[in-house]
Amino acid sequence: MTSRALPMLDFWFDFGSNYSYLSMMRIESEAARHGIGIRWQPFLLGPIFRSFGWSSSPFVLQKEKGDYTWKDMARQCRRYGLPWQQPTQFPRSAVLPLRIALVGAAQPWMGEFCRRTMAMNFAEDRDIDSPQAMRDLLAALDLPAHRIIEEALSDANKARLRRQTKIAVEKGIFGAPTFFVGDEMFWGNDRLDEAMAFCSGTGAGIHGIA
Amino acid sequence: MTSRALPMLDFWFDFGSNYSYLSMMRIESEAARHGIGIRWQPFLLGPIFRSFGWSSSPFVLQKEKGDYTWKDMARQCRRYGLPWQQPTQFPRSAVLPLRIALVGAAQPWMGEFCRRTMAMNFAEDRDIDSPQAMRDLLAALDLPAHRIIEEALSDANKARLRRQTKIAVEKGIFGAPTFFVGDEMFWGNDRLDEAMAFCSGTGAGIHGIA
Repeated sequence: MTSRALPMLDFWFDFGSNYSYLSMMRIESEAARHGIGIRWQPFLLGPIFRSFGWSSSPFVLQKEKGDYTWKDMARQCRRYGLPWQQPTQFPRSAVLPLRIALVGAAQPWMGEFCRRTMAMNFAEDRDIDSPQAMRDLLAALDLPAHRIIEEALSDANKARLRRQTKIAVEKGIFGAPTFFVGDEMFWGNDRLDEAMAFCSGTGAGIHGIA
Repeated sequence: MTSRALPMLDFWFDFGSNYSYLSMMRIESEAARHGIGIRWQPFLLGPIFRSFGWSSSPFVLQKEKGDYTWKDMARQCRRYGLPWQQPTQFPRSAVLPLRIALVGAAQPWMGEFCRRTMAMNFAEDRDIDSPQAMRDLLAALDLPAHRIIEEALSDANKARLRRQTKIAVEKGIFGAPTFFVGDEMFWGNDRLDEAMAFCSGTGAGIHGIA
């Protein structure tokens, strides 16, 4: 299998999405364990919610669902052994980190960058959508923060993020995280394991034919 | 443990709810395996949706979510080894079967009655909210259909179903299935296993103290 392409899982996420946090913190190690590759697909969930006529996350608009979600998050984080602090601001704006994630999507630092950004939001309750926050985070990873942020803020890259969100709409994405294996869609952290199993199965099938 | 009360799991469901179908078909055998008891809590989900300003299920109102839900249901039914037919009418009205379920909640036929009603809706695509359908179903279980339906349609029992739905609202229930272990709430078939584990853990704790 050395020269063969890995079966690929598309991972659509927004750094403001709490259930994306649960997937983000484990997806890279789980993908490695399954022998599958990740196509990182950062996108803005806000415009999708607005297209449904919602002014914010359903966890904000629907009090009962919101109250439950924070209890569920605390339980799920215990289950996965993840730190958890309910963000004092929710959903947090994440435009700059998502733009940086587009720049980094094919870079070896992508996973670590994404996990640290998620941890800032959901474990440290810190804002993530500021140049200062992102500069510090990138510098802590020994990366050329200035150059990366400049590229992230370029017109071409801004257009890319808008295009990502447009593609998400076209694919029928209505929440995050969402996973795709080819055209097969899986919604929510609760379906990550199923998506991975389906992906490695597909991969095996493809290899079997090749 | 023979003389001790089993730890109890409250199971809030509506026969019109497709994810309640997934839980219904396995909850009794799973509960037995975990050594826990079920408190059956039929309720009407419709009035709760309407209290959110929704005229129907989110799977109807939100096309993208609905499209996904039917694909997810087909996959989940394969996973659990359950028959599946997407209902041509959704969500199906279930007032009479829910009233009968209130009559049967403490009876030994409750589980089988509920599974057969769910199967009519989600495996056979048949209407469930008619006296004829319920009479046939109860008769097939060798039960006194006439007497049970009469009791189900009594004013006292109609009031009980309204009260159930009021209690559901007070408990912060916003969807089905929903499980409670004491005050701890678990929403969705995806949390049934976690609710069961929590319930038997709680039980063990209580027995340990006693």
